[in-house]
Amino acid sequence: MKTIKSVLIVTILLSLLAFSLPGSCGFAASPKKNVIFMIMDGTNSDVVTLSRWYKGSGLNLDKILVGGVRTYSGESAITDSAAAGTAMATGVKTRADYIGINAEGKPVLSILEAAKLSGYATGIVSTSPVQHATPAAFTAHVLNRDEFGDIGEQQVYQYLDVILGGGAAWLKPKSKNSVKNDDGMLKTKQISREDGENLVTKIKSDPLYSFTATRDGLSKSRGADKLWGAFAEEDLAYDVDRKTLKPDEPTLAEMTRSAIERLSSKEKGFFLMVEGSKVDWAAHKNDPVGMVSEVLSFDRAVGEALEFAELDGNTMVVAVTDHGNSGLTLGNGDTDKTYKNQPIETFIKPLKKAEYTVKGATSQLKDDRSNLKEVLNSYGLSGLSRNEYCAMEEANDAEDLENEMVKLMAKRANLGFSTHGHTGEDVFLYAYGPGKPAGLIENTELPGIMAEFLGYSLDSGPFSDWYLDGKKFFKDRGYKVLIDKRDVDNPELVATFGDEELRFPENKNYYLRNGEAVGLESVNVHSGGTFYIHWVE
Amino acid sequence: MKTIKSVLIVTILLSLLAFSLPGSCGFAASPKKNVIFMIMDGTNSDVVTLSRWYKGSGLNLDKILVGGVRTYSGESAITDSAAAGTAMATGVKTRADYIGINAEGKPVLSILEAAKLSGYATGIVSTSPVQHATPAAFTAHVLNRDEFGDIGEQQVYQYLDVILGGGAAWLKPKSKNSVKNDDGMLKTKQISREDGENLVTKIKSDPLYSFTATRDGLSKSRGADKLWGAFAEEDLAYDVDRKTLKPDEPTLAEMTRSAIERLSSKEKGFFLMVEGSKVDWAAHKNDPVGMVSEVLSFDRAVGEALEFAELDGNTMVVAVTDHGNSGLTLGNGDTDKTYKNQPIETFIKPLKKAEYTVKGATSQLKDDRSNLKEVLNSYGLSGLSRNEYCAMEEANDAEDLENEMVKLMAKRANLGFSTHGHTGEDVFLYAYGPGKPAGLIENTELPGIMAEFLGYSLDSGPFSDWYLDGKKFFKDRGYKVLIDKRDVDNPELVATFGDEELRFPENKNYYLRNGEAVGLESVNVHSGGTFYIHWVE
Repeated sequence: MKTIKSVLIVTILLSLLAFSLPGSCGFAASPKKNVIFMIMDGTNSDVVTLSRWYKGSGLNLDKILVGGVRTYSGESAITDSAAAGTAMATGVKTRADYIGINAEGKPVLSILEAAKLSGYATGIVSTSPVQHATPAAFTAHVLNRDEFGDIGEQQVYQYLDVILGGGAAWLKPKSKNSVKNDDGMLKTKQISREDGENLVTKIKSDPLYSFTATRDGLSKSRGADKLWGAFAEEDLAYDVDRKTLKPDEPTLAEMTRSAIERLSSKEKGFFLMVEGSKVDWAAHKNDPVGMVSEVLSFDRAVGEALEFAELDGNTMVVAVTDHGNSGLTLGNGDTDKTYKNQPIETFIKPLKKAEYTVKGATSQLKDDRSNLKEVLNSYGLSGLSRNEYCAMEEANDAEDLENEMVKLMAKRANLGFSTHGHTGEDVFLYAYGPGKPAGLIENTELPGIMAEFLGYSLDSGPFSDWYLDGKKFFKDRGYKVLIDKRDVDNPELVATFGDEELRFPENKNYYLRNGEAVGLESVNVHSGGTFYIHWVE
Repeated sequence: MKTIKSVLIVTILLSLLAFSLPGSCGFAASPKKNVIFMIMDGTNSDVVTLSRWYKGSGLNLDKILVGGVRTYSGESAITDSAAAGTAMATGVKTRADYIGINAEGKPVLSILEAAKLSGYATGIVSTSPVQHATPAAFTAHVLNRDEFGDIGEQQVYQYLDVILGGGAAWLKPKSKNSVKNDDGMLKTKQISREDGENLVTKIKSDPLYSFTATRDGLSKSRGADKLWGAFAEEDLAYDVDRKTLKPDEPTLAEMTRSAIERLSSKEKGFFLMVEGSKVDWAAHKNDPVGMVSEVLSFDRAVGEALEFAELDGNTMVVAVTDHGNSGLTLGNGDTDKTYKNQPIETFIKPLKKAEYTVKGATSQLKDDRSNLKEVLNSYGLSGLSRNEYCAMEEANDAEDLENEMVKLMAKRANLGFSTHGHTGEDVFLYAYGPGKPAGLIENTELPGIMAEFLGYSLDSGPFSDWYLDGKKFFKDRGYKVLIDKRDVDNPELVATFGDEELRFPENKNYYLRNGEAVGLESVNVHSGGTFYIHWVE
């Protein structure tokens, strides 16, 4: 048996290799290169058009439209956000619900992880919990997108430079709190950690990190090397609701700006993923107010990215949606014969009456519903007919009421919807800067294009076949191997040979050699009964 | 009063001017330049995605996706094909139903007319009657798209080099035939000419033209200078129906190829407009079989254009839809919760069972409906439940039956629809070749981009303010002017001064000077009570 060398040495060697990869020429230093990858979740082209009309002038996205993207997954003509996120993070079409895992069930390194291994600074920003499918696909490897506990832990041990978004609940140990306020978009059973770990404490105790939970904290945060901002237990509020209901939460644009400022101070360039998560959430509800709110919020974040990229000159910005959702159209059954005579106001005026999204409005409803009228009003619904009002009064629960409200809003705004689920059409591709993609591409082509710009490959070389089956690997080398599940929520791969014991804890980026921690280049993934690790002999 | 000079002389002078415009340098001859402008009417992006799945491999369109187009009209967030066609032909946003007329009601010269005046060969191809909104917008000027008689007459007197499509009915004088077989897409009261003119005779008697009415005639047609092919009284059949029900009609690809062959033999380059007209017609019905049929038929025509353009090297190909229609989505209410597990077959298999479009199928229904089952079968609908079959049996009329059939097809194929009308979203822009557009543009930008490539301008110079109010013009110059409506369907502007009488017949490209015909550069337009003519002192 060969002696297993310290992985730290391998890390250093690989880092040197990585630095020498992108066509280095003698002593000339490479200029910094940056990629900002922006995803508005679940946004068909109609919503972008509607949002532009609502805004009343051009969008930042309008300046950088370059093509289209095919979105289907490895198992469905209509993707979910997990498979789409994995496609755009790793370059593989995979099955629904898989996060950073290929269709055969094996973890695949993401463009963000590879960027980090290549010396780039990295960050993620989202308005959902950062453990939600899209940001998760760039930073974690789990078989089921709902495993927020595992995802959150992997994210902490990925040591990104910036993580900003929601999801504080999954950084903290088991609590009694299981009431969800999440638009039904979180399928996890408990909104807390089941493994008992307190990752907030872990982050706060790390001298490299600063931690903030407020908008004020974000704006004042300076100088610390790494930053974790968890601004909500679950998701951040819709932008139109945020203004009055959650003014202490930052906007997506503010988070994006902060992330860029921090990342661009690093010595090599950076890779940043930004998700406008909740266009999708509003689309599932068929709430056009929420959809427009979140497209415009996302577009302001795109503005921040473009402002930086234009000044920098060596930054690629890519913006896409991961898939359509809801089939929203300007025009519906009521405009079958009258569509050609509908001024903009037909569609916009009813939406502009709303102060809140439907979620924001119903969140203000009293238990005795005595303020129903005010709630309807705050969603822009006044002057209801007797029948319309009865339908609201007779709603069984909040979800039912929301349904009635969005149906009436769609009718008033002459908007059509074909589903409460995702849709399968090609979507617009937006991009700016050197090396940018164009034309019609597969969602799986995106990470390759960005990786090429950053000077590495995901398809060949060290990042292409990163993970191995740890159990098999050590067994083949004469080790005695077992998976220690005594702590069922914190399993470990244990390999022993003579007096050497190697212990790989799930989701961590280290192993214990006879009890002493040794750093690894990536997190250990326990998935589908297999313990995946990265190991170089 | 100045003596009015012969317009023919002006024509020659203008032609010389036009030839010298595009940066001519000494004696070097300009290379030929060509534009092929292809429009698939009423096609949202979802239909293109669905068609690609149906085909099972990439589309020609996929190779040339470059951006997006904003489609709204001068009066509505959702355009009709007349306003959209006018936008793309003339560069102005106008009102619904207006053909080649700006929002103030004045005729505007089209890119095709300007191309012709600049010495380019010109042609139009469509599967609708050539008098239908989109081809009309390039070749005619009327206040109401339904004025097929006027449109048809103007088209004949435009002397294009190639006109291929449907619409033979409006070339022939009044007949008793008023039964329409047109999917309800033609709003004209009579499918024949009300002015008593026989334009087929006129075309056939013209030594410059050859005329054909059959696919065979098209394929054998060679050598004649100009070609008019009218292959159906009204519209051509849907492509999937054509194969068995109308095999004597040419495909859109065949017409496109023939047009290109003919036009490319001319000494200067050419401008060709090709419309895949009936995606829109099927979309109004919510018939996915018809929609896919026509997208694929259009895409084969795009293949012909690209094949030529790639060899030629100096041809710009632009392909767009004029607006969305129907809000078709992969995914509907039945897939609200299951979308992420829908293999391609879910959507395609039910469609592939159909031999005919819903129109093609119901066209085979016997009066006693004894063959209803066969008709349903030919649309791919077999194994109906008792309730489903009853709904078919109980349908009041053909339209009702079609509705039931497409609803069942949509259910089986998991497709959603939000309207039977047009929709207002931004659409994909496809383009290839030198000078091609890219990014997000207004539909009104397209003709300017093409004109610039061809070396002329629609915004400035002779083409920018082409038409004048003939009555006012001659009155101001001391003429006695009247509109002679003795033949109510063939009004004439009459201007007399001393012993000189000038007579401008509606829709013709000449005037009579004391009874003798003198050629004009464009057709006379009688619109909204005003007689518009082009005249240079």
